[in-house]
Amino acid sequence: MKKHNFSAGPSILNPEVIKKASEAVLNINNSGLSLLEISHRSADFVAIMDEAQNLVKELLNVPEGYSVLFLQGGASTQFLAVPQNLMKVDGEAAYVDTGAWSAKALKEAKLFGDVEIIASSKDKNHNYIPKGYTIPSDTSYLHLTSNNTIFGTQIKEFPSTDIPVVCDMSSDIFSRQFDLSQFDLIYAGAQKNLGPAGTVLVIVKDSILGKTGRNIPSMLDYQIHASKDSMFNTPPVFAIYTSLLTLRWLKGLGGISVIEKMNEEKAALLYNEIDANPHFNGVAAKEDRSLMNVTFTLTDESEKETFDILAKEAGLSGINGHRSVGGYRASIYNAMPISSVQALVDIMKKLNK
Amino acid sequence: MKKHNFSAGPSILNPEVIKKASEAVLNINNSGLSLLEISHRSADFVAIMDEAQNLVKELLNVPEGYSVLFLQGGASTQFLAVPQNLMKVDGEAAYVDTGAWSAKALKEAKLFGDVEIIASSKDKNHNYIPKGYTIPSDTSYLHLTSNNTIFGTQIKEFPSTDIPVVCDMSSDIFSRQFDLSQFDLIYAGAQKNLGPAGTVLVIVKDSILGKTGRNIPSMLDYQIHASKDSMFNTPPVFAIYTSLLTLRWLKGLGGISVIEKMNEEKAALLYNEIDANPHFNGVAAKEDRSLMNVTFTLTDESEKETFDILAKEAGLSGINGHRSVGGYRASIYNAMPISSVQALVDIMKKLNK
Repeated sequence: MKKHNFSAGPSILNPEVIKKASEAVLNINNSGLSLLEISHRSADFVAIMDEAQNLVKELLNVPEGYSVLFLQGGASTQFLAVPQNLMKVDGEAAYVDTGAWSAKALKEAKLFGDVEIIASSKDKNHNYIPKGYTIPSDTSYLHLTSNNTIFGTQIKEFPSTDIPVVCDMSSDIFSRQFDLSQFDLIYAGAQKNLGPAGTVLVIVKDSILGKTGRNIPSMLDYQIHASKDSMFNTPPVFAIYTSLLTLRWLKGLGGISVIEKMNEEKAALLYNEIDANPHFNGVAAKEDRSLMNVTFTLTDESEKETFDILAKEAGLSGINGHRSVGGYRASIYNAMPISSVQALVDIMKKLNK
Repeated sequence: MKKHNFSAGPSILNPEVIKKASEAVLNINNSGLSLLEISHRSADFVAIMDEAQNLVKELLNVPEGYSVLFLQGGASTQFLAVPQNLMKVDGEAAYVDTGAWSAKALKEAKLFGDVEIIASSKDKNHNYIPKGYTIPSDTSYLHLTSNNTIFGTQIKEFPSTDIPVVCDMSSDIFSRQFDLSQFDLIYAGAQKNLGPAGTVLVIVKDSILGKTGRNIPSMLDYQIHASKDSMFNTPPVFAIYTSLLTLRWLKGLGGISVIEKMNEEKAALLYNEIDANPHFNGVAAKEDRSLMNVTFTLTDESEKETFDILAKEAGLSGINGHRSVGGYRASIYNAMPISSVQALVDIMKKLNK
């Protein structure tokens, strides 16, 4: 039976990416060696790292003066690397709290200085994106979370400011066009739109670094990683190669403008059903709805068993909502085909018969 | 042509491990889903993590009261996690400097307190293991590096002390029997004897944690990782699964006592040739020779081109020595068959004809 994998992350990858990753584990570049057993200093892997960095720059229109890094430790390690690298000693930073991941990010930052939460959607269980807040001009940086997987909200318009802007784009990078030059630091765990769990992409404007007066541990120091071309220590070879395969696939499709259109169509198909079908209700405020994670609940909770059986019969997995929201969550990342979204819509319609 | 991969790391893995890892990328446990796209909270992955932790405990005879963690960031991140978790505020620690990796470890520790280098082999470019040094009784911990990949030395007898003993075993864990209860914290990057680059194994005695008075960032806090059963954040799923395949292979062989004997035979074959063949000289002091990384030089450097051609013709790769030592380095980790060591010995004999 065809499986439809709506997992929030680690999540679906393109079938060609999976096939080629599997082949490389057996034999990389017809070398007779497995991708897993080659030195990260080998010509084969240096070329992989170079191409991955260059494709990130090409797909996202990264201007000169930014470094592209593939690190370890997930976005969770960036929660502490960001203040280490950007917050002045005894300094402060501004955070927008749009949900669980923002809260984790600002919790780590508090170890390094004062954190001002300049806006929060906590009052409505994070079902919307705060807007119209004032950004202080005398703080080290502004931290945003572009997409909130748990609540199904997404920032549609990024605020404009003169202070450095940092954004956790773990769950929507490469899904839509945006002006990268408006950001000073972007980080994104790979395991949604890029690759398997095990690497985190960091794109950082070099000129904002080295200004805090802190002694930064080497593994958390962006300047050290950038100076070693993201090979200060042994990089996560397999996760980076698989990410490269995804980047090649995206380029082959036609780039971000093409996948953005596909993502809009997929999300519209599902949100239209949620709005039209009286058995379901959307969780997020309409203007803030995520194109990546679609959250919804049953109007009548007693229909849960019926709907769950329909989902199972149709081969749908990973649609249970996060415990802090309840209901359902369909993660429809880049690699999700519209046919899988249609399979979900089809069973939603069955409940309406 | 058969390849003989002597890479120092990432390095050779058992062919069955590679084959099964490749298959799991296509389809894990006959689920119809790739290992790369399943949730780390899924039953499939929770079982993988459990089995991997339990096999580590079984193979190394880990006593009660220790946590087994699979983290990210390599041994390089442990260089800072160790002092964060174990060094008292304004405290100190004792380090034995046996080479480049020890030096990196103690450099990071200096950010957190006073580091006393109680013994060093720097005077002879680290070609031996210091012995007979005095271990202070009033310091937070003793830090050792059990095997030095670059120089080809290995600690044969670990010092006895009442203070906590921390050991970087990245390049020889699972290669020989040792009494784990003599250690309080062991860490090991996977990419030599365990799996692909992308995860680091940490075995820590729970009772030594939480005593420093420091505010530790969550991702560096062993207590947090242990309390979440090594799933505080998304773990590196693929690297852990492939490590599990290696652990299963080791258990199937008969455990550490069996692989230890095989490693002794492989190393003896190569060292015997180095000692018998006047064209070659061993780098490390005989009593400190590593069973994992065998370093040697040519007696007459003008034979380098000839020997390198012989190596290439025989399908040998990764035998160049580290630039700080020169000559050659044959890494003969657990997964290296004795037939590959024989292939190296065969070309060494050719130079002696």
